[in-house]
Amino acid sequence: MLAARLAVRKLKLPSSPVRQQTRLRSTRSASTCPIPTVNQPSFPCVDAHAARESRIIASSSRTSPPAKPSQASSSSGPEPPYARPSPSSYKTYRHTNPLLLVYGSSLPEVEIAYETWGTLSSAKDNVILLHTGLSASSHAASTELNDAEGWWERFIGPGRALDTNQFFVICTNVLGGCYGTTGPSSTDPTIGRPYATRFPVISIFDMVRAQFCLLDHLGIEKLYASVGSSMGAMQSLAAGWLYPERVGKVVSISGTARSSPSAIAMRFAQRSVLMADPNWNKGFYYDGLPPHTGMKLARQIATITYRSGPEWDQRFGRKLRPMPEDQSPDPSNPRVPALCPDFLIETYLDYQGEQFCLKYDANSLIYISKAMDLFDMTASSLTSLNLTPPPPRTSPPPLPPSLSAHPSSPRHEYYHSHLSHSKSHPPPTNPPPHLPDLAEGFRPLANTPVLVLGVQSDILFSVEQQREVADALRMAGNEMVSYYELGGVWGHDTFLLDVQNVGGAIRGFLS
Amino acid sequence: MLAARLAVRKLKLPSSPVRQQTRLRSTRSASTCPIPTVNQPSFPCVDAHAARESRIIASSSRTSPPAKPSQASSSSGPEPPYARPSPSSYKTYRHTNPLLLVYGSSLPEVEIAYETWGTLSSAKDNVILLHTGLSASSHAASTELNDAEGWWERFIGPGRALDTNQFFVICTNVLGGCYGTTGPSSTDPTIGRPYATRFPVISIFDMVRAQFCLLDHLGIEKLYASVGSSMGAMQSLAAGWLYPERVGKVVSISGTARSSPSAIAMRFAQRSVLMADPNWNKGFYYDGLPPHTGMKLARQIATITYRSGPEWDQRFGRKLRPMPEDQSPDPSNPRVPALCPDFLIETYLDYQGEQFCLKYDANSLIYISKAMDLFDMTASSLTSLNLTPPPPRTSPPPLPPSLSAHPSSPRHEYYHSHLSHSKSHPPPTNPPPHLPDLAEGFRPLANTPVLVLGVQSDILFSVEQQREVADALRMAGNEMVSYYELGGVWGHDTFLLDVQNVGGAIRGFLS
Repeated sequence: MLAARLAVRKLKLPSSPVRQQTRLRSTRSASTCPIPTVNQPSFPCVDAHAARESRIIASSSRTSPPAKPSQASSSSGPEPPYARPSPSSYKTYRHTNPLLLVYGSSLPEVEIAYETWGTLSSAKDNVILLHTGLSASSHAASTELNDAEGWWERFIGPGRALDTNQFFVICTNVLGGCYGTTGPSSTDPTIGRPYATRFPVISIFDMVRAQFCLLDHLGIEKLYASVGSSMGAMQSLAAGWLYPERVGKVVSISGTARSSPSAIAMRFAQRSVLMADPNWNKGFYYDGLPPHTGMKLARQIATITYRSGPEWDQRFGRKLRPMPEDQSPDPSNPRVPALCPDFLIETYLDYQGEQFCLKYDANSLIYISKAMDLFDMTASSLTSLNLTPPPPRTSPPPLPPSLSAHPSSPRHEYYHSHLSHSKSHPPPTNPPPHLPDLAEGFRPLANTPVLVLGVQSDILFSVEQQREVADALRMAGNEMVSYYELGGVWGHDTFLLDVQNVGGAIRGFLS
Repeated sequence: MLAARLAVRKLKLPSSPVRQQTRLRSTRSASTCPIPTVNQPSFPCVDAHAARESRIIASSSRTSPPAKPSQASSSSGPEPPYARPSPSSYKTYRHTNPLLLVYGSSLPEVEIAYETWGTLSSAKDNVILLHTGLSASSHAASTELNDAEGWWERFIGPGRALDTNQFFVICTNVLGGCYGTTGPSSTDPTIGRPYATRFPVISIFDMVRAQFCLLDHLGIEKLYASVGSSMGAMQSLAAGWLYPERVGKVVSISGTARSSPSAIAMRFAQRSVLMADPNWNKGFYYDGLPPHTGMKLARQIATITYRSGPEWDQRFGRKLRPMPEDQSPDPSNPRVPALCPDFLIETYLDYQGEQFCLKYDANSLIYISKAMDLFDMTASSLTSLNLTPPPPRTSPPPLPPSLSAHPSSPRHEYYHSHLSHSKSHPPPTNPPPHLPDLAEGFRPLANTPVLVLGVQSDILFSVEQQREVADALRMAGNEMVSYYELGGVWGHDTFLLDVQNVGGAIRGFLS
């Protein structure tokens, strides 16, 4: 979409600051700074920014669509890169009533992109709403409309964690996103131009409310479960909180109910480098060049938080990138290090940034990462947002479709399995001071079965935060909390990679 | 110095890219993008970059020196901000012979800035060489030449950790720095212009060799001890390795002998944002505007690694900045969040970046952070650098000046204290695979008493890395390793803040 927009508006492209700057530098070099040509240092990692800008300009002057991005790879980031979806590859719902937002603004209308897997039962009681992380589209798995691999491909399908033999799975692009759902890059119908940073600040609760507008439209009164990882876990908890009677079970994987200052700091660093890119232009770049350099730098920082040190120790260690054959050094002398990426860990981060920087809308990144920072389910925070807590659900948790089909299965055993998991988690030894406030905030979730799953090597959503969610739920009176901690070296990305353990825990909790 | 350079070269300032860009944006806005003035978002955190640039340009057009930076504050960063030293505030030594460098290049001459505290004994046997972290000057404590607070003010002085009643303490600005010692901003004597990025890549070993040129000049044959924290700990270990017979004891606080991929990743992110600043201009900015925006962004990232999550939980939590009185929101409505810094953790990082961005040379940051990445004392790495390991010291460790003055003190008790500390550390349960290689590399340090001190909340130089240093030294046969781990919430910055425990361990080890 962005590339198409650039193509349409190619005549409006002003002289690029980068090109201006190149010219200025050249002039300056020629007139005041005659640098010897010998020993002139080269910085391919810096030249890459200008080269990318040239490619964008060249591509915007052609009418052909941009080259299709590479296929998904589950090892490359928090959500794997996937083909930028074409509007025909997903369904949309246009909600034409205003959507009131938590922070006091409203959107006059909202379009929601979504995809589905499995078959909706006639009773419409087998629905799983799957929430995405920050930058993912609705394309969680391949569909008839889009056969590209999705970001949770191995978790969705017949017999998989989200078993499409049983469940009807819905995934939306979140409010604020750029993959078909209304976000900063969407046209503000009141002025006929992109919102840009006139887009209102949104919250995780707003994202969920938009999703429930879609459910209303689809005639789905109740969810069998709400499932999400990372930011999706925030949405999943928020869905259970906003609509206790409509959400049968909640799955929260590597999420949090209260963003920590450390996580805010890492996202702040990303927003800062993005907003400092001159191309960002305070968010008004849609008729010009996108802040691709800032996006690359932001993604490099983000990638650091997605994996763990032990994984990098094993995977990269202190290995250097292979030297091109024509530059292979004299083996009797030390290899002269480069200031541009030289260690494999550096080339990895560089690659991750490069892969991402033109695939996602910069303003979406800013708004959604801010929504993550703002997320806080303590009672005091919810009160300050004028969010009135609904009463906890009174209806019993749903029986899984498989059990419904086999009424002889003893229901008490089903509950027992949850309680035994719950009891396996010891009480907190050093409870954080905000735990009672969080427990108070969690009251609407008191009767909802919740799976909380965390990863000990996660540095973005620490395992302490996972324990906090489980502990606060129990303090709120919830006796149906399943809690798991996973080991391993994959850090936050575990939810994308560990089909065996993450998928297994989900399957067990849902069945 | 930088400001002075700008003032001298003010006529050479080209049209700033930022100003160019502002003009382009204005033109574009006027002709193609008539944005309504109502609801126009403001971004003071972005405007700050342009405002800073304007201030630099204005200050470069005045002949007055820049405003004196604020006084040091020990709570603000890895090294507190200190007044940019004037050349009269420290001593210098000009080494007029070429300095051969580990990576094959050489510097034709080297100037070394240094400061001293205490009195050199007639036998010149009471010398402590204090090594600095990345961005510190030689001004570790106030002197007669410079009464500003130094970065280790509370650790140096009569009766303090580095007791000037006993010891003669020397601290240099490191090779590659910008506070008086030769670095990228220095004039290359062969061409009469700043080296910029024609400066050769340097290693921690080069920094130490330069320091020993100074010691030679001062006629100091042996150090009583080599002391350093963070990057200073790397130098301290390197000094003991390069010159076993000249270094009596080694103190390594919150350092490492082998930079990890995680730490490289964080420094890579900083270099990347800095090098992407158009003002950086591949390092050739000395006749123009410095990359102040990139420096601010880099420092924000660095600051995240200097403190710990638990400290921020306690200090900032999720508190927001106070609102200006004229913007105080309607208490019945939620406060609308800003995309610019809003949480206190954000304003803290923003402030840290702002304070630093004009106080340090960007190229120095790049070269020295790269030297940290490159540091690796495994035998295989040292061999690849053609560094020939000297034999371990044969002379016994020095008696402290206080013991020399009181010969009745039993020497065996003095050693016993070291061994008991040493034995308190259990053997590694999961030794990293490179530990034997590191132990082999440490052989020259086998007979040197070493104090290794780490902090459990340090995310930059993890406590695992501290254990690694201690374990590898013991595997190398060193029976005089003292090892301490500190708790607390200050993370990497503990070495600047915890006078009681860090200072106490040093005092005990040195006495």
